[in-house]
Order: sequence, then structure tokens, then C-alpha cells
Amino acid sequence: MPIFHDKKLKNLSLKMKEPAFHLRSLLQDKERCAALFYEGGGLYLDLCRQNMNSEVMVTLTEKARERGVRQSFQDMMAGLKVNASEKRAVLHTAARNPGAPVWVDGNDAAAMLATVLRKIFAFADAAHNGEILGSAGNRFSHVLVVGIGGSRLGTEAVYEALKARHPVWLPLVFLSTIDPNAFYLQTRELNPKTTLVLVVSKSFTTREVAMNQKMVRNWLKNSGVEPSDHMIHVTAKGSPGDCKQDICRDVFHMFEFIGGRYSASSAVGTLPLSLAFGKDVVERFLAGCREMDAHAAQAPEEKNLPLLAALCDIWNGEYLGFPAFVMVPYAAPLLFFSFHMQQLYMESLGKGQTLSGQPIPPEKQAMLCFGHIGTDAQHSFFQMLHQGRGAPVEFIGVLNSPLEACADVSGHGLTPHEELWSNLLAQADAFALGRREGRPEQLCPGNRPSSILTLRDLDANHIGRLLAYLEARTVYVGLLKDINPFDQFGVENGKTLAADLRKHFSGEVPSSGERVETYLNALRQGFFRDQEPKR
Amino acid sequence: MPIFHDKKLKNLSLKMKEPAFHLRSLLQDKERCAALFYEGGGLYLDLCRQNMNSEVMVTLTEKARERGVRQSFQDMMAGLKVNASEKRAVLHTAARNPGAPVWVDGNDAAAMLATVLRKIFAFADAAHNGEILGSAGNRFSHVLVVGIGGSRLGTEAVYEALKARHPVWLPLVFLSTIDPNAFYLQTRELNPKTTLVLVVSKSFTTREVAMNQKMVRNWLKNSGVEPSDHMIHVTAKGSPGDCKQDICRDVFHMFEFIGGRYSASSAVGTLPLSLAFGKDVVERFLAGCREMDAHAAQAPEEKNLPLLAALCDIWNGEYLGFPAFVMVPYAAPLLFFSFHMQQLYMESLGKGQTLSGQPIPPEKQAMLCFGHIGTDAQHSFFQMLHQGRGAPVEFIGVLNSPLEACADVSGHGLTPHEELWSNLLAQADAFALGRREGRPEQLCPGNRPSSILTLRDLDANHIGRLLAYLEARTVYVGLLKDINPFDQFGVENGKTLAADLRKHFSGEVPSSGERVETYLNALRQGFFRDQEPKR
Repeated sequence: MPIFHDKKLKNLSLKMKEPAFHLRSLLQDKERCAALFYEGGGLYLDLCRQNMNSEVMVTLTEKARERGVRQSFQDMMAGLKVNASEKRAVLHTAARNPGAPVWVDGNDAAAMLATVLRKIFAFADAAHNGEILGSAGNRFSHVLVVGIGGSRLGTEAVYEALKARHPVWLPLVFLSTIDPNAFYLQTRELNPKTTLVLVVSKSFTTREVAMNQKMVRNWLKNSGVEPSDHMIHVTAKGSPGDCKQDICRDVFHMFEFIGGRYSASSAVGTLPLSLAFGKDVVERFLAGCREMDAHAAQAPEEKNLPLLAALCDIWNGEYLGFPAFVMVPYAAPLLFFSFHMQQLYMESLGKGQTLSGQPIPPEKQAMLCFGHIGTDAQHSFFQMLHQGRGAPVEFIGVLNSPLEACADVSGHGLTPHEELWSNLLAQADAFALGRREGRPEQLCPGNRPSSILTLRDLDANHIGRLLAYLEARTVYVGLLKDINPFDQFGVENGKTLAADLRKHFSGEVPSSGERVETYLNALRQGFFRDQEPKR
Repeated sequence: MPIFHDKKLKNLSLKMKEPAFHLRSLLQDKERCAALFYEGGGLYLDLCRQNMNSEVMVTLTEKARERGVRQSFQDMMAGLKVNASEKRAVLHTAARNPGAPVWVDGNDAAAMLATVLRKIFAFADAAHNGEILGSAGNRFSHVLVVGIGGSRLGTEAVYEALKARHPVWLPLVFLSTIDPNAFYLQTRELNPKTTLVLVVSKSFTTREVAMNQKMVRNWLKNSGVEPSDHMIHVTAKGSPGDCKQDICRDVFHMFEFIGGRYSASSAVGTLPLSLAFGKDVVERFLAGCREMDAHAAQAPEEKNLPLLAALCDIWNGEYLGFPAFVMVPYAAPLLFFSFHMQQLYMESLGKGQTLSGQPIPPEKQAMLCFGHIGTDAQHSFFQMLHQGRGAPVEFIGVLNSPLEACADVSGHGLTPHEELWSNLLAQADAFALGRREGRPEQLCPGNRPSSILTLRDLDANHIGRLLAYLEARTVYVGLLKDINPFDQFGVENGKTLAADLRKHFSGEVPSSGERVETYLNALRQGFFRDQEPKR
């Protein structure tokens, strides 16, 4: 029975909507606040601004225990085929735990991943030391990563985060959409002679990747560069890209037991990240992931950070009726984690039925997700969250800042970092408390939930913890909702229809509908035929 | 009476939910589809995939006519004080129509704006020609724009869009959040000796801008550069920044009759954009805005693109119950328009009461808004929109592409640009039609609305039209919902609470609550005191 049909939780949600349980009152209770502050896996999670009392939290964790989601999480890590629709194991956790064997169909997945990782580190070392050179004898200066969705967003999030603290050997440039503008904008400042190209695609048949890699190949050739010396493939064994000879410099394998959006700690992420930051940083990143994985699997329900965060999602989405939540890191380097989280969450959990095929009522389906960094979001969409449609906010803060050179700019004796934190805490309180005094247009209802996730630092270790936390949290929502967070069959339909349209566009099949014909003609003419006489 | 209480529309929405009105059926009707295709203001809008028949559209436009929203729009353009709560005129439209006088409190607003614009063009010319130099005698090579929210997002959206087609004299770099990481990341590749700094803030008291400009000033000084030779203020007359002597090189005025999120065509945008692209490009951009403004004000309700789009929002949000909509440009250079639109929409329309103080039921409040570019979004959050929670999608396409050098990469005789369009159209159809055949996990309900806005090109003229279209569409939603889309009092509460917290942080006022104390101590120590003994 999915958790969304729980009567006790339903009744509790009605109770929590009574004025006595407004966050203004709940936040008065110091014991409650202390009890809703958690530490684990190297992170801190503050849930005191959730619309719940201890009875709600106890009930939620009981439900999680009854459903056995922690066991399911451990089953996932042990290599069971928890991706039921595709009959696949789900082993992103093995990518960061190379020492612990995990058997899938008679093979040790961890050992396979460890072999790839060793090869990656050796390759990155060689690129940094100049043992590997471009076809004209140049050292590589940049890495162009060609990949889309899960082959881009997680890597990019980690890369952008780590850039703030760790020196970069080889900067990464990302190319994903099929829009030729993107190709032009991303390559125009690169020197083909010094650009190493990673093509990342499990199937190597993704249209965007297939086309962009051809465009890159032409770009290299037209500059007198031999593509096979500059291109590296990250792909599955046996894919059309798994073919070293004459086509690329080397192939690094990815495996069907790690899906795109969970792949940032596999070769998809570790190859470009090793080229950017070197082996040591990537190892610390993986250690951070591993630490959070262990916490997510082993910590009891009532102390398990990603599980508790997932329970808050269930509570806010299924019981309090919020259709969306918002992730707002108060740390500029974490901007791209908002986009990664959006994919991770919405692609994993955007399903309309349970594992057993039971339809999920729309208002019980997983929430939409978006985000941006603070304080920028305060000057953008926060207005609506204060006075219009509310949405639970997941704040992310970082305790330490090594950049305190400008402590004198506040005029209040505060460093910019302290000023940043005073904003984060003030916004969280403003959502919770609201405003009761002032002119009508100044009033805010308050009672809007938020949580604060705190990292001690922005180093590789903490970024690993954060990535694994977001992954585990997403998986736990899937387990609680009894859906499969590892497939994405909803995107197939668009692909099929696009393939049909391609045939109309190329003239292979005459167009069957005016809807398409209109656009086809407009693309050829540069404008639509007038629908009616000009005014 | 706000439009959301309309009984006829309510009844029509129930009817449209019947299976006979599934988009699969509605799209069969060619006459309906042709009737729902619009051209105006230099753009095309295709609404055939909205969940409506002609009766709905006729009823919606009738309501708009009854409410007199077009007259209200004209009143806005004529200088009436339509921002009631702040008793201000709203004249972003005058910024792009310098020849047409608009009187506010006895002054010609258009003439004031035109004077500033002339000064901007002269300044940009001088910077390009090397008549204006840095304090060490260097030509300027980059422009650092310090501003947040409306002082950044619109300018950035236009800049990123125009970069794809127009050569850049002086690249722009943006600095907004107070996070010192952002300062470090944005300035570390700039040469202070060749960096011109624009500080953009109407009040010049916005914390982020006040602090960042001091950090920039120190950065310049520490490099032996005289800040007053490198800094330019864009601010209101009489603000603390309206002070040329010894502090900055020049001051360009902005006016209280143009709010931040509507300011991209005022000095806030035209100064940096002129420095980036030169006068000619900016004039074409302004001409594009002007053309759309004229259309938005004059075209009858049933042919008025921004008004029709606004009516779709009312229909989807208030009557069909969608809590959010998504904007997805299939054009990489338009990525930042998603973030600009998010601010424009959510800050303008995130209100819980009408102009007369009547509370708006939560489910009738304006929608949340987010977006990203296609095709990337297909590999990210589209899964949820296909199978989980639906959301109306506003696709944006561009007909012409000058970048057809790589026509041979498709393998289907299609250019990448045609491939991009086949994806756009396929996704729109997939949302509408759904999928009825296949295994249970492959099925998609369909009947999910979308619209397609088409630009002929990505040149300055069309970017101006797009900007003005999004502004007008936002204003029209406000007028239809009877709310004030020009104030943002909801953000005040957070500012007040942050000011209180600053005093606790600095020790000026002893902390009053444990919630704050915990974080204060953690910031000092670098970690939280353990909440309980370590496991």
C-alpha cells in the first residue's frame, strides 16, 4: 500500500493546518527545534521549519520503517535488480566504493568500475604531464564534453562547485543541445589543436550526441587536426562508439547498471573531473559520496538525513498539497546543482503509476522542482513564495568561507559570508513567520515550510556528500511512493514522434498533417504564409 | 469582479475535461488549428495545442474586453499611475519610444529617457574609440555589471541572446549575489586595469550592490587602479550613488517609473548593451520592443498576442488547475530568458490579493514558472511533464539559422536546425497526443497544453520583440487577475528580518533565539556542536 493512502497522516495533515500549529507557534518550542536538527554522513539538516510536530515525524519514520525502504536501499547497493521495468541493477554507489565487491550476473561490478577508474586516473595523469598530445604535438588546454542530460548535468554541477576551491588543470566546456548556435558559441573560443573531446553517451545513438560529435569531428578536421587523436568515447561495451580503431583515441566504459542521472561518480563524471582537477580531488569527492552512501544505507530511519528529507517531500507533496519545491543554495558555486537536482528529481520521480501499475492520483504525484542561488532568488522569484503560491524551500548553506579578505565592506562589522548567512536565515524565518503588521499589500501569510542543509565546506569531500545525499533522497522518495526512480519511459514518445517528423522534414515520407506542413514551409521560406490579410 | 469567479468559464472548463475534448480530437479540426494561429508585433503564436475550443477562446477574449484591460494597458503607456500601491507611473514602454512625449507630474518622461539614452550612446562610442581610458591609460576590455534581480536578469538575457549574432566590443561579466565566492569567480579572470565597472541600483542601498561595489572598489585600488576612473553608476536622481565627484566616472539616471524587472530597455540595459554591441544594435533592439508595445496596446483582443497568451495563463492556471508553467526556448542563446521570465512573472504576479484587497484563493493565484532550453530539457525534466505532473509548456522557436555549415551530420538529410525543429514539434505533439500503446510504464496520458511562439530570427530586432512580448504578457495577466504587477512588498519582510539578524551577528543586539544562536556559533566554530553523542 503506497504511503499516500495513509489515514493517520491524512488526519495529522488536517490538524497541522489549524492555527495553533502555525510555524510561528511551532518555532517557539525549543525542544521541538532541537529534535528536528540532524547530523549524519558529514552534513547537517535542520527541519525545524517544516509544518510538523514530533507526532508527524514519528509517524512518517514509522511508515518508512514499515515499508522497509532502508532494506530496499541496501538491496539496491547489493546489486539486486531494483530497476524492475528494465530488469537492471542500480549501482552508482559501487562506483565510489571500488573495494567492496558487488555481484551482478556473475560479474563483480565494483571491480569493473575500479578498472575503469584506474585507467581514467592514468589517462588524466598522462594528459597533465604532456605524455599525451594533440595531433599537431600540442599539449591539451581544454576539454570539450559532448553529452546531454545525465551525461552533462551532474558532471557540470560538480565541476562548477569544485572550481571555487580547487585549481583547474584543464577547463571543461559542455556541449549538449542540437542547436547549432550552441556548437558555435561553445567552440568559438576553443583552439582545436589543444582541445581534447569527450563524447559521453551510453548507447552512442542519442541524436544530439551523434550529431554534435560529427560536427566536432568536422571542426577538428577543418583545422588540420586528426580527430582520432583528440576524441575519447565514454560509452557502453558494444555500442557504436565502442570502437577505438581510427575513430578515437580511447574508450572508457560505462555500464547499464548506472543510469545517466546517477552517473556523475562513474566514468561519465570521473573522467572529465580527473582531467579538470586530478586524481586526488576526485578521490576525495568519491570518498564523500561513499560516506553519505553508508549513512543513507545504515543510519536508522529517525536519524537518516536523505530519508528524512524524502519524508518531508512526501509530507509536503502528498499531505500538505504543495505541487512544487524549490532548492536554493546560498553558495554561488552550487548554482548548477539546482539544474542537476531538477533532472535527478523530475526524471526519476515523474511517474504516474506505482511499480505494480496502480495509477497515482495527480495530486499525489511527485513534486515539480526548480531552483536558483541565493541571494539572487530573493530578488527574483521569492516574492511569489512569500505572498503568492508557496513552495517548500530547501536552503543549502556552507559554514566555512576561505574568502574573508573584504571584511570591511558591510558597514556592520559583518563579513560578506556572515551577511550571506543572515540572509539565508532571515528568508527561512520570513517564510515561516510571515508578516502580520503593515498595509494590506505588505502582509505575508507565513507558515511556509523550509529546510536548511548545511555543508561545513565547499571542498571535494563535501561536494561528494551533497551529490550522494541528493541521489539518496531521490531514491528514497521513489521507494516511499512505490515507483521506479530509475527508468524514464515517458521520454520515448517524443523520440518516436521526432523520428517520424524527421522523415517528413527530409521528404522521405510526405507530411500527413497541416500542423507540420505549416512549419516545414515556414522553415523553408523564413516566414509563415500570412494567415489573413495584413492589417 | 476578477475573472477567476466567472461561471461560464468554470462550466467550459468542466466540459473541456470530457474525453471528447482531448487534444487528440481537438487537433483533428484543421479549421480550429488555423484559427488558433496568430501573427502580430513581428512574432507568431500557435495556440492550437491549448485545451480549448473556439467557444473558450471567444469567451476569454470577451472577458478581457469587458474588463477593459487593453485600455488599462494604454493608460499605463500614457503615464497614468497604474502602480497604485506605490503611486507611480509605469513607463518601460517610454524607454523605447523616445519620440513620443509622456507626461508624469509635469515632466516629459520620454524626453528624460531620451536624454539619458543619448548620453549612453555617446559614452559607449567614446569607450569603443579609446577616448575614455582606464586610470593607467589602458583601453577598456571588459565591463563588470554589479546589480541584482531586475538590474541583472533582463540585461543578461538580452546580452546572451544577442551574442550569438552580433559581434561584441566589450564583453559583460555579471556580479550579483553577496556570496564572496561569486566575487572571486567573476573577477579572477578580469584585469582591473582594463575593466569598466557599472554599478546598477535604483536606490543604491540594496545590500548586495552596496557591498559588492565596495569589494570591487578595493579590488581596483589594490591593483593600483583609481576606482573613480573605472566606475559608473546607474541610479536614481538623489540616491547615495548619484554623486559623481571623486567616486565614479559618470552617473546615468534611472527613474522611479520603471521597476527593476521591467528595466532592460532603460539605462539599466541600454548602457551595458551599448558598451557590448554599440548604438546600432541597441537601436534595433529598442525598435523591436516598440513594435511589440504598439501591437500589445492597439491590436484588438482577439488578435493581440501577449493578451492571448495571458488569457491562456488564466485558463490553464485558474480553470484547468495547473500550478506552474514552463518556458522552453529551442534556441541555446535564449537560456537566460528563462531566468528573466521567471523573475518577471513570479515577482510581478506572486500576490495573494487583488488591487482592492480581496484575497485570492491559493488555487487561483498566478502560476509558478521555470524553464530551460530544448533539447536539453527533453533529457532532464520533460519526463515528469509527460508522465507525472503536467504543466503547460511555452515553446519558443526561431525560423532562420545562419549556421548551416554542418548540414551533413544528421544522416537523414536534415540540418541540425531542422532536427531541432523536429524535436520541438514532436515534443509539443507528444504532450498533446500522449501514448496509448505499449507496456503500462510506456503510456502517457497526453492532453497537456503547450504553445509555440516563433521568432523569424535571433537578431536584435526580434530579441526586442520577445522582451516586450514577455513584459506585456505579464502585465496583461496582472490586469486580468486585478492585481498590481508592479510592486513587490512580499520581499520586504525578509529584508527586515535580515537587518535584525545582522545586529545579532555583529553582536550589536544579543541574540533572542536559539535558532539563530546555533548557526552563529557554528559559523564561528566551523561546525555545529554535536546534538547528541556520536554514533
